Amino acid sequence: MIQDLTENIIALSTPQGVGAIGVIRLSGPGIIEISDRFFKGRNLTKVEGNTVHYGKIVDESDRIIDECVATVFRAPRSYTKEDVIEFSCHGSPYILDQVIQLFLRHGVRMAQAGEFTLRAFLNGQMDLSQAEAVADLIASDNAASHEIAMRQMRGGFSDEIKQLRQELIEFASLIELELDFGEEDVEFADRSKLQGLVEKIKSVINRLLESFQLGNVIKNGVTTVIAGRPNAGKSTLLNALLNEERAIVSDIAGTTRDTIEESLNIKGIQFRLIDTAGIRKAQDEIERIGVDRTIEKIGSSSIVIYVFDVIESSPEQLWSDIDRFLEGSKVLTAGSKRIFIANKMDLNPYIRPEDYYRDGLISTDNLITASAKNKMNIDYIKDKIYDTVIGDPTMMQQTIVTNSRHYDALRKSDEALEAVLRGLSDGTTGDFIALDIRQSLHHLGEITGDISTDDLLDSIFSNFCIGK
Amino acid sequence: MIQDLTENIIALSTPQGVGAIGVIRLSGPGIIEISDRFFKGRNLTKVEGNTVHYGKIVDESDRIIDECVATVFRAPRSYTKEDVIEFSCHGSPYILDQVIQLFLRHGVRMAQAGEFTLRAFLNGQMDLSQAEAVADLIASDNAASHEIAMRQMRGGFSDEIKQLRQELIEFASLIELELDFGEEDVEFADRSKLQGLVEKIKSVINRLLESFQLGNVIKNGVTTVIAGRPNAGKSTLLNALLNEERAIVSDIAGTTRDTIEESLNIKGIQFRLIDTAGIRKAQDEIERIGVDRTIEKIGSSSIVIYVFDVIESSPEQLWSDIDRFLEGSKVLTAGSKRIFIANKMDLNPYIRPEDYYRDGLISTDNLITASAKNKMNIDYIKDKIYDTVIGDPTMMQQTIVTNSRHYDALRKSDEALEAVLRGLSDGTTGDFIALDIRQSLHHLGEITGDISTDDLLDSIFSNFCIGK
Repeated sequence: MIQDLTENIIALSTPQGVGAIGVIRLSGPGIIEISDRFFKGRNLTKVEGNTVHYGKIVDESDRIIDECVATVFRAPRSYTKEDVIEFSCHGSPYILDQVIQLFLRHGVRMAQAGEFTLRAFLNGQMDLSQAEAVADLIASDNAASHEIAMRQMRGGFSDEIKQLRQELIEFASLIELELDFGEEDVEFADRSKLQGLVEKIKSVINRLLESFQLGNVIKNGVTTVIAGRPNAGKSTLLNALLNEERAIVSDIAGTTRDTIEESLNIKGIQFRLIDTAGIRKAQDEIERIGVDRTIEKIGSSSIVIYVFDVIESSPEQLWSDIDRFLEGSKVLTAGSKRIFIANKMDLNPYIRPEDYYRDGLISTDNLITASAKNKMNIDYIKDKIYDTVIGDPTMMQQTIVTNSRHYDALRKSDEALEAVLRGLSDGTTGDFIALDIRQSLHHLGEITGDISTDDLLDSIFSNFCIGK
Repeated sequence: MIQDLTENIIALSTPQGVGAIGVIRLSGPGIIEISDRFFKGRNLTKVEGNTVHYGKIVDESDRIIDECVATVFRAPRSYTKEDVIEFSCHGSPYILDQVIQLFLRHGVRMAQAGEFTLRAFLNGQMDLSQAEAVADLIASDNAASHEIAMRQMRGGFSDEIKQLRQELIEFASLIELELDFGEEDVEFADRSKLQGLVEKIKSVINRLLESFQLGNVIKNGVTTVIAGRPNAGKSTLLNALLNEERAIVSDIAGTTRDTIEESLNIKGIQFRLIDTAGIRKAQDEIERIGVDRTIEKIGSSSIVIYVFDVIESSPEQLWSDIDRFLEGSKVLTAGSKRIFIANKMDLNPYIRPEDYYRDGLISTDNLITASAKNKMNIDYIKDKIYDTVIGDPTMMQQTIVTNSRHYDALRKSDEALEAVLRGLSDGTTGDFIALDIRQSLHHLGEITGDISTDDLLDSIFSNFCIGK
């Protein structure tokens, strides 16, 4: 990633393709003067910032490339905090290319992916986690991921991290001051206060670390597997949840062989519903592959909706199936949540759900009676799926970590703080404790970009859109 | 097409898809007030036109949908001549959709394709042929079509038509004045002057009609077929023209069976080069289909490049081939131009091109000696292809008709003027002559939109992009 801020850069900021308009963005210290040379209309070097001007873009030989609207932003009141020009042109790929080529011939170079946002970061417009949120915001495709990205872009997460750092920095300074006094054996930093502070910070970090599981599924969609014996009504349930006929439904056990994946949005959270082949001792090779695939899907899912047929499955049968297929195959990780659907209740309303309860596994909390065919209790199942992910409803109001880079930095910071606590209880000398605090500060600083390397910036911004 | 200008409209003006930014355009009499209700930042109703303002778009429940830049255009200084707002948002389809949905809930409706430009036309910002040029400009993908569309959008064509109309209108008025005097038998309109004027106008219209053939091929690309006997070097010539190995070349006659189509840009004009199967008595069924297809392609092409092998083909052989395959099959229409390539000159430089000349068909004007294999004379062939289309080099400087609607209107106008001339020479009474003049004026007026119907506007603007 080139970080030479004296260069002028250009890129198409709108998506490729034919459209009503296409916007070309230019940024850099000489960009208004250069733009003005090829713009016929108002003298762009003389106009105020945040104004728009109708005119023509002409090339070196005075050929009109386009009639357009030029927006002038003057530093520091622009996205990059540099002088910025945006040309809103006719949305012809040919014209947009001609305009870009024109400027490339005159001292402006093509912007790299994310380079405008990189400059915004380098010029102090936003910190690194805010810059990353810009990409998340653009990629957001549902209400929850949008809200988290928006909050992060607006600095919520950064503020929290910065506050933690600030408190730690003060203590680190005190301890380092002790070191300056060498052998005099003074203690400016109150050890028990430090311990309290570190514990407080660790608890905040741990809450953030815990939020990552939620953040990650919100960002990428929550994988939700529908499993159960053949003919338990899994496909019927999928169709009912989607409110459409997606999966082929029949009375013949083993109808679904391939796994079917569909998106379901519940209150702004994206769920990836996966209908699977029924789990049983396979009758043939194709079915065996289907069953294996189901077991595999269950293993990597966040939620398992286990459907059973109340007519065919006695409580004992259900428990034994769970032992054999779910617990026995060790596919259920601690993280995955289970919802049990007692299906086909319409066929025998006298079934008592509590007969199916089993300590620590099936209870009133996660067993729902339903009739997928009659769409009975479907909305309730949706609420349950949502609650299973969100858990504490106040969770969505708090800062949620969605970025694995942030998760990593928080984890490393937490480890360093753990070392600080160990040091304090072992009576380790101030210089080692100071080192661990610095280590923790370093990792917190990586999140906001107070600490950054070229490689890091490179890996972050190269995932951006061109023109952002 | 709804022409109610009291309604407020909205559309995404940039192409669909994820990008750095997406621009949402709103237009209508109440649009600044409506936009301001959901924009947190400067009060948009109080700011000057042609200014941009950073702020947040929030929904009814104060949820931030996006941080964006709002551009305010005040009537009549806007594209539509109405109040216009453009929101430059983060280029997330989810966010853009949320913003549009927000306004759709509050008295703004979705704009139809081309509706902003329709309003620009209805509000007198541009005439109809200029509005049509906007769509042509966006669709332009080469220098020539771009230049013609730009000139038309800037009013070159309209000016020419309006001037013709103005002169005719004056005469029509004089003749109609005569009619008011009924039986008094006065002649305010000088018949011989009228005849001169009509002839002058007809000659302009005829030049425009003639330009349509050029305009049409420039807009759609010039179909150029490469034909000739098997193994004459057609594919080698195609590769040499494209400067790449596109077609499979071998010594085996009949290598090319499918027609191959490639784009070649010569001085800004797009040529669609079609390499064909060699023409000969087919050896098998597959080859026969290939030969038939070649003959068909030749029939619908603007230029035929006929390649022959100077070693294998004597002049007599060439002439007989042309008689059999081209003239005999009656596929060469009057419009298609022919270039003959005497190929493989490297194998015998003593061949005299003039031996191949034939009256009215092959001459120094359209026979080029070449060696496709050695790339000899390839640039000269390109120049010849270009000249064959452009003919008179000043042609490109003049108004060129590219739109078949305009061509049609010009043709009808010309027919009416023809009737005027007949009437003048027959001594027809003024009222009939006036009718024909009005008819001619009507058709000229259709071009610029002085005369228009809902159906016409509908068919024009429905071909536009959404958001333009």
